[in-house]
Amino acid sequence: MKWDAWGDPDRVTVLSESQLGLVHDALKVSSADVDAVPFDEVRVRPSVLTGADRDALVAIVGAEHVSTADADRLPRAGGKSTLDLLRRKSRDEQDAPDAVVVPGSDDEVAALLALCGERSIAVVPFGGGTSVVGGLDPVRDRFATVISLDLRRFDALVSLDETNQEAVLGAGLPAPEAERLLAERGFELGHYPQSHRYATIGGFAATRSSGQNSAGYGRFDDLVRGLHVVTPVGVMDVGGAPPKTAAGPDLRQLFLGSEGTFGVITAVRVRVHPLPESKAYEAWTFADFATGAAALRAVEQAGTGPTVLRLSDETETALNLATVDDAGGDGADGGDAAPGGCLAISVFEGAPALVAARHQATRDVLLANGGTSLGEAPARRWAEHRFDGPYLRDPLLAEGALVETLETATSWSNLAALKQAVTDTIQAKFGEFDSVSLVLCHISHVYDTGASLYFTIIGAQRGDPIAQWTQIKSAVNDVLVGQGGTITHHHAVGADHRNWMTDEVGPLGVAILRSVKATLDPAGILNPGKLIP
Amino acid sequence: MKWDAWGDPDRVTVLSESQLGLVHDALKVSSADVDAVPFDEVRVRPSVLTGADRDALVAIVGAEHVSTADADRLPRAGGKSTLDLLRRKSRDEQDAPDAVVVPGSDDEVAALLALCGERSIAVVPFGGGTSVVGGLDPVRDRFATVISLDLRRFDALVSLDETNQEAVLGAGLPAPEAERLLAERGFELGHYPQSHRYATIGGFAATRSSGQNSAGYGRFDDLVRGLHVVTPVGVMDVGGAPPKTAAGPDLRQLFLGSEGTFGVITAVRVRVHPLPESKAYEAWTFADFATGAAALRAVEQAGTGPTVLRLSDETETALNLATVDDAGGDGADGGDAAPGGCLAISVFEGAPALVAARHQATRDVLLANGGTSLGEAPARRWAEHRFDGPYLRDPLLAEGALVETLETATSWSNLAALKQAVTDTIQAKFGEFDSVSLVLCHISHVYDTGASLYFTIIGAQRGDPIAQWTQIKSAVNDVLVGQGGTITHHHAVGADHRNWMTDEVGPLGVAILRSVKATLDPAGILNPGKLIP
Repeated sequence: MKWDAWGDPDRVTVLSESQLGLVHDALKVSSADVDAVPFDEVRVRPSVLTGADRDALVAIVGAEHVSTADADRLPRAGGKSTLDLLRRKSRDEQDAPDAVVVPGSDDEVAALLALCGERSIAVVPFGGGTSVVGGLDPVRDRFATVISLDLRRFDALVSLDETNQEAVLGAGLPAPEAERLLAERGFELGHYPQSHRYATIGGFAATRSSGQNSAGYGRFDDLVRGLHVVTPVGVMDVGGAPPKTAAGPDLRQLFLGSEGTFGVITAVRVRVHPLPESKAYEAWTFADFATGAAALRAVEQAGTGPTVLRLSDETETALNLATVDDAGGDGADGGDAAPGGCLAISVFEGAPALVAARHQATRDVLLANGGTSLGEAPARRWAEHRFDGPYLRDPLLAEGALVETLETATSWSNLAALKQAVTDTIQAKFGEFDSVSLVLCHISHVYDTGASLYFTIIGAQRGDPIAQWTQIKSAVNDVLVGQGGTITHHHAVGADHRNWMTDEVGPLGVAILRSVKATLDPAGILNPGKLIP
Repeated sequence: MKWDAWGDPDRVTVLSESQLGLVHDALKVSSADVDAVPFDEVRVRPSVLTGADRDALVAIVGAEHVSTADADRLPRAGGKSTLDLLRRKSRDEQDAPDAVVVPGSDDEVAALLALCGERSIAVVPFGGGTSVVGGLDPVRDRFATVISLDLRRFDALVSLDETNQEAVLGAGLPAPEAERLLAERGFELGHYPQSHRYATIGGFAATRSSGQNSAGYGRFDDLVRGLHVVTPVGVMDVGGAPPKTAAGPDLRQLFLGSEGTFGVITAVRVRVHPLPESKAYEAWTFADFATGAAALRAVEQAGTGPTVLRLSDETETALNLATVDDAGGDGADGGDAAPGGCLAISVFEGAPALVAARHQATRDVLLANGGTSLGEAPARRWAEHRFDGPYLRDPLLAEGALVETLETATSWSNLAALKQAVTDTIQAKFGEFDSVSLVLCHISHVYDTGASLYFTIIGAQRGDPIAQWTQIKSAVNDVLVGQGGTITHHHAVGADHRNWMTDEVGPLGVAILRSVKATLDPAGILNPGKLIP
């Protein structure tokens, strides 16, 4: 992945003339205002790893698996939030872990944690590096030194049980590689978050990821059957062979979302399913967001079984249609001709008879709730381009736009009010920075009692964009916790949301997390400054 | 509920001649060997509640809500396991809580917990009294006194949100009353465990209950959206408006299954659904248990959507058919004429079109996997009699039989081996007591990666039946934890399974539970001797 941008280093995303025009005219910014710092001019905080510490690390994992080179440290200095990318582009000295250490076994991880406990070295577990909440920040807390513990060598499909439809996957396996290994055996995990191309299995578990197929296959926490965790006080296998148990609290749910603060997840046992025999696609349009949301609610509460179900609001619908570069391409299916409204996508996967039945049952509910079919093509186009979104951010940032996403979830009845409150807050805060702003929103995860809201925000960079966005985001977070939303539906907490955790789970919730942390990580070396206030 | 038996005090269950003959001939026992202790000859350990403690309790809840009468204490001395019933029938002095206290508000519960902390009084939360794992034992631990905290006044449908399909239910609400209140508004919770007629909403949450409709609506832990918990250090609302969140560990999953050891659950927010418009029933027979289990697995992994799906083994099938007292009644549908094999039940609920589609898809899978339809009648008969099972135990116990149930869950691939190991262990242990034994088994909860196994055991009481069953059960528990099962799929841990919790969750799992307990209940007054070793 690029060190200062999203994704494939070989892929160049160029803004269209109309996009450029919009940015220049509406936001009154241009690339001339933005400093593009080349890699060799970046100043990285020198490593403070002592020779003795380095020798001790090398004794555990071997010299080839310990690096203090800037080229290794810088890509592990953060994730891929806009704040991260802006920090990477800074000419100020950038913080970074003092070393990157790459263990190859549970025993090596255990030895590293013991060593770091003794030597007071903070440890940041690292998977795919796609955090957008500061989950990878090299926070030293009370320790002099911090290392990045890179899990990329835990990259095996450890086992696949075709009868039980369970696989044990190494935590460091990138999602596409996990799918490739499973597909060779005829199976699929089916977890496709926006970060899919780079994120890892362990990261999904540590952050409670949610993917585009969540309506059909569940969130990642629904897919996890067991976790293998190396903690500073010992190794735990959380969740055994039984699919369900009433033997007390479900401790898997403590490690899911633990963000590296309780232990290092090195393997995950997940539910897998046979590669779907067939898929069906259908796009829909609704007169407005409220009508579309009510239709999605009706589908989910009826349980008709779509694999993917999502709805863009009016702004996102208009903008996506406007930026599709194949004018006249497949207008025949009515997709491009759709006049305004809100676009919804439905996808169905599985055995042909079930796909047909689920598709028909879902159609019936959508038609009865104000939906108009746009046919197959727009839904297929969504599927084809669904991982492209993040690529657009980098050229926009380079033009002086401030682009970021944020997300929440709330009950169905609170959805419209929360969407409006977040939108108003963002636009008011950008207004304080003398900038108009565009707020796009979609529902991408539906539940029987509520849904997620995913916002994409485009405004102008003004002054120090890091301070600017921090202020805007902070105001949004206050709205989320104050008005019935969660601080995060699937991005996790990290450093960026940590100040709102007490609002989210209450002081006793925080006390519980601290007590578990003290039990498993008595020295407090694991990912300090994240999750737990 | 009867003080020394299951269920409705007005209902008398009489064994048929064939059942009596089987017991007398095969087990070589008779009612003459069994001492039937009348209520007025039972000796209850006198209450040791001091006058000062009583005054303090009365000051919180009022005199009418504090009782030290034997008639109140004895029904709260335990639950409804066979061990409980045998204890109730003992002429030895029986232990019982020193008082029954019935608070009417969160504030009263909080004040009671504060008082009990100060005065070193242990507290056993009490709902419907249906525990079968010693969850209600009046264990004093290091305290001189123990009270039963009866939640029956928390009996309101607090709220129902028809848009979000969520209801807030008082923890002390008996399940039938909860369903009645919801049905008045057109909704259903749909949680029907065997204990349904007497168990409470709070009890379902505290013990991770699982009901007969789990394939369709999920286990109780799947239905819970939020918990209102009064702990000794404060009140917690666990789980907010958002349906899902990635804000760290899911703390609801700590309180689900906490069995009154972390706090007193006083209200539960649950997912409800509209009363099903239609239902379809179909019974099936399979040549043997392995074939039937494979067929259930195929259905669940395909996700065809039955609401109920269960399979009895050969022994249970034969016995249930043999004891149906309507010979010739509905033989026309082929039900009674079924020659051996294994009986499976499927039920489908929901909107008519979905019911039809799910039924058809499930039929297709069952037919393709060796199933032969028995039509509708046997499935309807199961539904009609599904809460009758426990009533049969009492007359059998009175005849000198030892009757109990136990349950577990494991992966599909381990199901047959674990079933055999449990059966062999039970029969070998009864053999040591010079008794034959009958072991019936069914699958009543199916998951994509595994299933539950529910055993009904009938042998002869020999010597002290409490010591006898304790020995047999202990041997089974060793098998469960040693051979890939869980110590309990839905009965919970209580006092009876507590010695196996370290095997179940590991020493670090126990350390986590202890740290949470110390944080929320620093005095350790809440349900001592249960769940946490």
